Amino acid sequence: MARVVVDVMPKPEILDPQGKAVLGALPRLGFDGVTDVRQGKRFELEIEGELTAERLAEVEKMAETLLSNPVIEDFAVRVVETDGAARS
Amino acid sequence: MARVVVDVMPKPEILDPQGKAVLGALPRLGFDGVTDVRQGKRFELEIEGELTAERLAEVEKMAETLLSNPVIEDFAVRVVETDGAARS
Repeated sequence: MARVVVDVMPKPEILDPQGKAVLGALPRLGFDGVTDVRQGKRFELEIEGELTAERLAEVEKMAETLLSNPVIEDFAVRVVETDGAARS
Repeated sequence: MARVVVDVMPKPEILDPQGKAVLGALPRLGFDGVTDVRQGKRFELEIEGELTAERLAEVEKMAETLLSNPVIEDFAVRVVETDGAARS
C-alpha cells in the first residue's frame, strides 16, 4: 500500500485565469503582499501492493496521459507514504 | 520573496466525483493497481518580502476563507521556498 501524489500545474508561459481571479480577489478581501497565484490540481492515488520502480513508472505514465495535459501543464509525481511510513 | 503552497483536498467523508471519474477511467486505459483517487486543488502563492510568522498566519487565513471551503475541504499550507533556498 502506498500513497502517491501527482501535482499538476499550468506551465509558466500559460495564462492561468483561475490563479489571476484569486490574485485579484485577495486585496478586496484585505490581504496584501501576494504578488502571484497559480492554481493547479493535486491528485492522491492509493496504490495497492509494493511500490516498485515499474509501478512508479506506470504512475508517471498515468500522470502524463490522463491526469495532465502535457501541452499546457507540468506534472510532478511524489511518493508520500509507503506501508504507513511517511516520506517527504 | 517566498513561495507558499496551499493544498486543498476534499474531506475523507465527502464524495469526490472527479476522483471517482479518474479511478473509473484508469482500468479502461490499461492501468491497474490503483485502489483510490482523490482530486483536489493546489495553489502556489508568491509572497513579497520576508515570510514572518504573522504573514504565514495571514496565508492560513486566506486558505481558510478564499482558497478552500472548510465545510467540505481540508487544507494544508507549506512553505516551499524562502529567498531562493528550497525547503521541503
